[in-house]
Amino acid sequence: MDHIGPILYELSGRDDRRFSPFCWKSRMALAHKGFFPPGIPVTFTDKDSIAFSGQERVPILIDNGVVITDSWMIACHLEDFYSDRPTLFGGAMGRSLAGLIDTWATRSAFPLLVRLVLCDVIDHLDKADAEYVQASRERQMSTTFVSMRQDRDQWLRPFRDSLTPARSHLKRQGFLSGNTPGYADYCLFGFFQWARMISPYPIIEDTDPVSLWRSRMLELFDGYAAKSPAHAD
Amino acid sequence: MDHIGPILYELSGRDDRRFSPFCWKSRMALAHKGFFPPGIPVTFTDKDSIAFSGQERVPILIDNGVVITDSWMIACHLEDFYSDRPTLFGGAMGRSLAGLIDTWATRSAFPLLVRLVLCDVIDHLDKADAEYVQASRERQMSTTFVSMRQDRDQWLRPFRDSLTPARSHLKRQGFLSGNTPGYADYCLFGFFQWARMISPYPIIEDTDPVSLWRSRMLELFDGYAAKSPAHAD
Repeated sequence: MDHIGPILYELSGRDDRRFSPFCWKSRMALAHKGFFPPGIPVTFTDKDSIAFSGQERVPILIDNGVVITDSWMIACHLEDFYSDRPTLFGGAMGRSLAGLIDTWATRSAFPLLVRLVLCDVIDHLDKADAEYVQASRERQMSTTFVSMRQDRDQWLRPFRDSLTPARSHLKRQGFLSGNTPGYADYCLFGFFQWARMISPYPIIEDTDPVSLWRSRMLELFDGYAAKSPAHAD
Repeated sequence: MDHIGPILYELSGRDDRRFSPFCWKSRMALAHKGFFPPGIPVTFTDKDSIAFSGQERVPILIDNGVVITDSWMIACHLEDFYSDRPTLFGGAMGRSLAGLIDTWATRSAFPLLVRLVLCDVIDHLDKADAEYVQASRERQMSTTFVSMRQDRDQWLRPFRDSLTPARSHLKRQGFLSGNTPGYADYCLFGFFQWARMISPYPIIEDTDPVSLWRSRMLELFDGYAAKSPAHAD
């Protein structure tokens, strides 16, 4: 039987490991709306299979004949098109604030997390992808993966400090969005899931409220995110 | 005629200058709900007048016989008690996310702004308050106001960097909360209003989207915040 419902094109590494943080934002948003599509894997160096989208990045959602790129646009589409299902934003103001938190997670916490775990991603890529990713990222960041691995301890404290607002918030409640999770949670979680799937580096202490929140996130939707392989699996 | 409606106790400096960022959060939240109470001034060293609240900090709201302390609790009270007036949060999820952004502004941007402008606050305090504030803050921060003034330029870039998420967001829309302002906007704005009222230090470039947003915030409610004296006034 054909898959009915949204289709997600998502990044895949070796052995079908799907670790993209931005794809995880969309995966969790889809799950929130009750969708668990199998997903169509795309490797870093295979851009042909997504040329139909007119751009070169995943996630890409195909839903009811519409092609949507960019994780934020995908979330907005899901919220608007499936407004009778559980809400991702809780209204117009919540949508705007979730967008701000998405930007905060992407611009404040993620660049520091990159310093901690990106160098390990090549352990989970086929040769062509590994070479492409290492060369392009080393060029972008004006450093080498070897240097990043050597120097990463110095970025641990800044990364953990960058989570201060979330940590303070999560001391008082279960999720960033309230007593139940919303899209803002999925935005930050995507980066944690990425780290978990590519690197053994201990990015956060087990007793940190953010770590406890991450555990709750992993267990959502019958352990949906927890079932994906961690680094060592 | 007696004032009808909420009463706000707020911090006051010399010549009745009311610059407290946390009081401004409450002032703007009150204005959002249609209230412009005259406010009862409290100086740093006069704690007797607010002893009735069982604690020593402002803002304090008295409304319908209830005493509410803490700017966040005041916002929640206004939202719940005046639910028929314009919303500060836009629902439960928006409330939670506004709380996170409140924490972000307070824990990420504000400590850096303190490094830029706090040393100027004594220009706007009577002698007793100036001595109290300088001594207590120098002790808390393990530095002197003289050193802070000498070293402040080095904190300008980190402060502006801390605004990256807001800046990125405000390139796309008028306010943090969407096309119209909400409590998340007032949270960040309170710190800018504080800086504007106590210090001539140029904390942000005029062309910065955050500066353009600040200008819009100053003009809200018939220029409510703009009418308060700036540093040089």
